[in-house]
Amino acid sequence: MMKRIYLLSLPVLLFSKNVFCQQQDSLQLRKIANEVLASSTAYENLRFLCKKIGPRLSGSENAVKAVQATFSMLKLAGADTVYLQPCMVPHWVRGEKESGYLELGNNKKHLLKLCALGNSVATAPEGVKGTIIQVNSMQELHSLGEAALKGKIVFYNFIMNPEHINTFRAYGQSGTGRRIGPAQAARYGAVGVMIRSLASNPDDYPHTGMTTYNDSFPKIPAVAISTNDADMLNSELKKDRVITAWFKTSCKMLEDQPSFNVIGEIRGTEYPAEIITVGGHLDSWDLGEGAQDDGAGCVQSIEIIRVLKALNIKPKRTIRAVMFMNEENGGRGAKAYLAAAKSNKEKHLFALESDAGGFSPRGFGIEADSTTFQRMLRWKPLFKEYGVNDFFAGGGGADIGPLKEIGTVLAGLSPDTQRYFDLHHAATDTFETVSRRELQLGAAVMGMLVWLVSEYGF
Amino acid sequence: MMKRIYLLSLPVLLFSKNVFCQQQDSLQLRKIANEVLASSTAYENLRFLCKKIGPRLSGSENAVKAVQATFSMLKLAGADTVYLQPCMVPHWVRGEKESGYLELGNNKKHLLKLCALGNSVATAPEGVKGTIIQVNSMQELHSLGEAALKGKIVFYNFIMNPEHINTFRAYGQSGTGRRIGPAQAARYGAVGVMIRSLASNPDDYPHTGMTTYNDSFPKIPAVAISTNDADMLNSELKKDRVITAWFKTSCKMLEDQPSFNVIGEIRGTEYPAEIITVGGHLDSWDLGEGAQDDGAGCVQSIEIIRVLKALNIKPKRTIRAVMFMNEENGGRGAKAYLAAAKSNKEKHLFALESDAGGFSPRGFGIEADSTTFQRMLRWKPLFKEYGVNDFFAGGGGADIGPLKEIGTVLAGLSPDTQRYFDLHHAATDTFETVSRRELQLGAAVMGMLVWLVSEYGF
Repeated sequence: MMKRIYLLSLPVLLFSKNVFCQQQDSLQLRKIANEVLASSTAYENLRFLCKKIGPRLSGSENAVKAVQATFSMLKLAGADTVYLQPCMVPHWVRGEKESGYLELGNNKKHLLKLCALGNSVATAPEGVKGTIIQVNSMQELHSLGEAALKGKIVFYNFIMNPEHINTFRAYGQSGTGRRIGPAQAARYGAVGVMIRSLASNPDDYPHTGMTTYNDSFPKIPAVAISTNDADMLNSELKKDRVITAWFKTSCKMLEDQPSFNVIGEIRGTEYPAEIITVGGHLDSWDLGEGAQDDGAGCVQSIEIIRVLKALNIKPKRTIRAVMFMNEENGGRGAKAYLAAAKSNKEKHLFALESDAGGFSPRGFGIEADSTTFQRMLRWKPLFKEYGVNDFFAGGGGADIGPLKEIGTVLAGLSPDTQRYFDLHHAATDTFETVSRRELQLGAAVMGMLVWLVSEYGF
Repeated sequence: MMKRIYLLSLPVLLFSKNVFCQQQDSLQLRKIANEVLASSTAYENLRFLCKKIGPRLSGSENAVKAVQATFSMLKLAGADTVYLQPCMVPHWVRGEKESGYLELGNNKKHLLKLCALGNSVATAPEGVKGTIIQVNSMQELHSLGEAALKGKIVFYNFIMNPEHINTFRAYGQSGTGRRIGPAQAARYGAVGVMIRSLASNPDDYPHTGMTTYNDSFPKIPAVAISTNDADMLNSELKKDRVITAWFKTSCKMLEDQPSFNVIGEIRGTEYPAEIITVGGHLDSWDLGEGAQDDGAGCVQSIEIIRVLKALNIKPKRTIRAVMFMNEENGGRGAKAYLAAAKSNKEKHLFALESDAGGFSPRGFGIEADSTTFQRMLRWKPLFKEYGVNDFFAGGGGADIGPLKEIGTVLAGLSPDTQRYFDLHHAATDTFETVSRRELQLGAAVMGMLVWLVSEYGF
């Protein structure tokens, strides 16, 4: 009888222990969330980055100020150590404000809302002029070839597909025009490129973003026009009209500049050699304030340090908040971070990035082997009451991506995506678009995940 | 053998049939979503309500314009029948802009950001002045009683608890001060009431909203002050200071006015007598544009009609989009709708309300018997790809609530709640706060649920 009872009780005991642990964890996570929701400094830190500094393009004076500011913020948050990690960054400048127009016949000119693409070369001082050839896919470009494109301005009208619920999917699909369109158009002798802005909605704001040239082809100037302008141009071209465009840019790639990743650390009590990175990127495009992209990720990462310190939680593993430099047009900070990790032979257990805006958190994208992924799924129920329902494979992020090389488990905060491409890389990316509670809730669930990894490892 | 095979195959066949049905449903829902996301008129309709009309308090000229405008919108959307359903509504007016200040000693005055509570009486022409007694709970009010409160101004500093992830929970808890605080303070001889605005965050905007007097006690004037002012006042009072406040309001309840619910209908093909209602409320408070509260719900409901017509979907049951009048300070439209349903002996199968803002949809609150609730849960997997994960009990909404009396199954769209109380009932509730995609996605999932009920009933 004793034996039978024992056999019956063992799973019950194990079950009770699990339930007890989950309850303890749940209480700890609730403490973290409450502290962030009631007393976070993330929103005020973001206000400072956006309103006292502003756009923070790599190599700019504002980027220098942002390094200094987040250094201080990490100190104030209570990090044990705060330090700068050097890297050389590209220094691209926009120059004078761009201008351009369409000639619509009868001497009617339509002024375009446009901006140079990041890392683009400038036009000649008199601008570039040419007949517009609209292209709706890369295949179409290749089939048109030199015969149709030589001396022309290629207009990539790649519409973000509104049917994708996750707007990042639409961005990924339609982004080829911006990323490789200028290089590919140059291959066929085009003299300039205009892309439809990568924006979810019709509006009047051009959205910039990096283009990458191909050394085999000439570098031709490239701009983005607003979605409203793109729709108008598309409908004019549908009337079988020949339309000429002119635009002028004076952007330039200058000499590389010295810059830094900014790093704040809490040393782990039990496994100090095991490092958990939580980060966002400090640089931003120059048109807006870099609020959602990615001031939000920076101040959320700083908040992880603050909340642990405020609650006197001593993490078992070392927690590092990292403000990566130069995500937007080079990724040099990310490369420097990996290089340092390798040369210092650091053990990077886990890295969490927030670079999809400070919107309500919905989930985490996870890049890990399937065993680790399954282990992380055990934690999913703990996040449900915070509205975080989605643990999915993939989606770590550009700044932590290089750490994959050294076996780090990667994760990206996945917030609601509906508003991101209204403001991404545009003048509309301002502090006012950030909801204080949404930003905080994102920081809270990031802090919760970081604590779990720190406590239990994988 | 035949028999055995038959027995084995039956569940397989049933399973296949279910899978097939779910796949068919899934395709139909996807069509609805795609049409809304690509071609919705909801956002432009909302722009009209907010920018061409503006605030739409019951009894106002703007409310009349909004009735006309949504009548036209429903026609344009393709409703078979559009009609007005009369109701008498209260006609409360704010009068001149309110003013008020705190006397902080040394002749220092602090001007307050304040507004009268909806349905409040005005102060005397010279305003009301009194010593402030802060109260942090209704219990505290009752224990202070007449000895402490007679001749005083009661300040209800009920802070929305930031620890509630769902902000509506915090609103429910802290809302007693606004809803019954003035009546209860009058019971003990207070001469005026100031409440801390029901807002999630510190800011400078007073948030109005209805208060309800109690016929047993005098009607005393009541205002809301901004959360920043409330924080300041709270910290001044903590210094054990006696602080005097003065404020003046000239709001007034005038004679009831005739008004209308606006209704657009698609007649059902198989069960035309079974009615499905989908609605929002057309009236709004007077301080903002009533964009999220609840222009959003109105234009989403109109969109349900538009999308079914655009896709040539002929619903089996009758679908009614209803713009309810007077949700904010009387609920007269809701009462008229129930009264008509009863006197016409209509069968109201289901009602869906959107009155929690046009934010990203996260779920549906459902009020139904447990069998029906379980049946609706079968549909939950169909909504997952749209980010709608939460089917929970309760939360139908104020305008459809009365239909419970006649056995209607009720549901409320449950969007993300983080931003709602930044703008609810305040000047900040403007068109600009509405994301086109979030609004559309809400309309899409509403249309999907309405179609499922129309197709399958309960």
